Amino acid sequence: MREVTIAIDAMGGDHGPHVTVKAALDFLQQHHDVNIVLVGLREVIEAELKSLKAESGSRLRIHPASEVVTMDDPLTTALRGKKDSSMRVTAELIKRGEADAGVSAGNTGALMAVSRFVLKTLPGIERPAIATTLPNRNGGWTYVLDLGANVDCSAEHLSQFGVMGAALVTAVEHKERPTVGLLNIGEEDIKGNEVVKQAAELLKVSGVNFYGNVEGDDIYKGTVDVVVCDGFVGNVALKTSEGLAKMIAEELKREFMRGPLSKLAGLIATPVIKRFKKRMDPRRYNGASLLGLRGIMIKSHGSADAYAFRKAIERAAEEVRGGLLRRIGDQVGALTRQEEQVPEEQVPEEQGERA
Amino acid sequence: MREVTIAIDAMGGDHGPHVTVKAALDFLQQHHDVNIVLVGLREVIEAELKSLKAESGSRLRIHPASEVVTMDDPLTTALRGKKDSSMRVTAELIKRGEADAGVSAGNTGALMAVSRFVLKTLPGIERPAIATTLPNRNGGWTYVLDLGANVDCSAEHLSQFGVMGAALVTAVEHKERPTVGLLNIGEEDIKGNEVVKQAAELLKVSGVNFYGNVEGDDIYKGTVDVVVCDGFVGNVALKTSEGLAKMIAEELKREFMRGPLSKLAGLIATPVIKRFKKRMDPRRYNGASLLGLRGIMIKSHGSADAYAFRKAIERAAEEVRGGLLRRIGDQVGALTRQEEQVPEEQVPEEQGERA
Repeated sequence: MREVTIAIDAMGGDHGPHVTVKAALDFLQQHHDVNIVLVGLREVIEAELKSLKAESGSRLRIHPASEVVTMDDPLTTALRGKKDSSMRVTAELIKRGEADAGVSAGNTGALMAVSRFVLKTLPGIERPAIATTLPNRNGGWTYVLDLGANVDCSAEHLSQFGVMGAALVTAVEHKERPTVGLLNIGEEDIKGNEVVKQAAELLKVSGVNFYGNVEGDDIYKGTVDVVVCDGFVGNVALKTSEGLAKMIAEELKREFMRGPLSKLAGLIATPVIKRFKKRMDPRRYNGASLLGLRGIMIKSHGSADAYAFRKAIERAAEEVRGGLLRRIGDQVGALTRQEEQVPEEQVPEEQGERA
Repeated sequence: MREVTIAIDAMGGDHGPHVTVKAALDFLQQHHDVNIVLVGLREVIEAELKSLKAESGSRLRIHPASEVVTMDDPLTTALRGKKDSSMRVTAELIKRGEADAGVSAGNTGALMAVSRFVLKTLPGIERPAIATTLPNRNGGWTYVLDLGANVDCSAEHLSQFGVMGAALVTAVEHKERPTVGLLNIGEEDIKGNEVVKQAAELLKVSGVNFYGNVEGDDIYKGTVDVVVCDGFVGNVALKTSEGLAKMIAEELKREFMRGPLSKLAGLIATPVIKRFKKRMDPRRYNGASLLGLRGIMIKSHGSADAYAFRKAIERAAEEVRGGLLRRIGDQVGALTRQEEQVPEEQVPEEQGERA
């Protein structure tokens, strides 16, 4: 296996180097064929390494960056004001080929804007998207995109998301023909708004293994490998899920704390509850993919701890090894060639339906 | 208290009279000031009453309807083909003033179309919406609308949903100034798509107690009393929640069944789990309100059992008693008067922002 180098925005996230440096060290211990570049304020990173009784070396380099994009910085500051930010330098290392992928727990909007500005989009991709994995009832993962990068999507955008999502699943899960579903409010073709209806037509001829419409509950049923939606809908679905999961966990805890007998039952059930919590632990699938760029960039949750951030680094490494960029390129290439061939066939069909 | 009469589409839902008749009898036993009209095939309803050792009387009438709208019937069949369907006759009883409200577990799309056709919308309401309640972490309820009646909403529609949702909470929960939040993908004013941004401006001057933007997790946090969104987004949020809740319940069960020790722990924890399940039981809040019509119509879940369907009947009775229609009328009236006053002020502001 060839060596992989991952650049880490060491300053990003709620906890900065305190989390990112520890996660990098843990990762390196488990993966011997990956190098890491920690990007950020040298003294701060070195102090963190020292406190962990570690030091930089051939597999763990520090690359200096003098500025930090905060959660409150407006996009213009991230893009134009702080040209030597750890976030931006991370993206530049990818662009210059000094890293194969990047990971940042910084502000999502800023990370997308900076990554897009520095790396540019892949040919044939109009808009990058954010994809994440959610656990499903099959014991596997459902990939959902977009999650908020694009709030006003055209049918073409949605179709491209499907192509990119399929490439992601092939790269990371090694499934050759992953199924792609279009998030809608009913399974029938006639349902949904105009954009979604048109997107379904485009996905049918996109070359991906298009399943058809799916509904919100299909995300957790695991009906398809990839669920495509616009960023507004995807963001609401994700946040709603987070809110519900928290409420359920709280209610369960409350019931087990209600009185001495319940507490005793809770004590006895502790190992079961622990296993359950582990299975549901969102840290396990931390790391959203910024898809459609000429480089691999992973966005970690801002509040990630070292365990969660390590998962995001693992995801970056998997995408590199799975040849994600080449796969997206191939699929989009096939799509573009197909689009050049189909217009004459499609126009009369659509007119026929309207008549 | 004045007597309330509720018409029930006895034939609707997955189980038809087997559930609706039982629910009606249970409801009548608990509420002595409400009359019920069971609408549908007389022989079938009478057979069901007989099997439950009950009969019709002054408080429980049967109103015949010779046809049934099935789940697969296209809208045109429900609207024009089956003019004597139990669903349509239920709506007509409301229109003629023979019932104060209706309840049906039939096809949502058909029920909305038939109700709108028969009852018409209230003055000032362009589109009716579907509202439901979801439990929140405050131990209360969050009202969410729209849930699928409208997939392409204008800012005006969203603003009207806010007004109707507030009126619903006042009528049913007796809160005088319920808070209204606009579902978005960030709390800041600049977030979201154009329609949502405009809707926020309209809600600010609508007379409702507008909180501002909320996110998906706020539904379950209970940040506001009413969450407003377009039907596509609302439907996805609801279905996603259903899917996640099912997965969590399944995982919890699986962990408790994993081995003899876990099973024993589960046995000991049974009363706790039961209380938890009861609190999370979606049957408790069965019954979505079709808002914006000149009549009160409640849509029950199609798979509702007698307990769940009774909850839907209770909701109908509460809306009648709370004076829902008058409250919506008052709020919309205030909104319309306000709109007539504000345009001169608003136009220059909007132009200023664009320049």
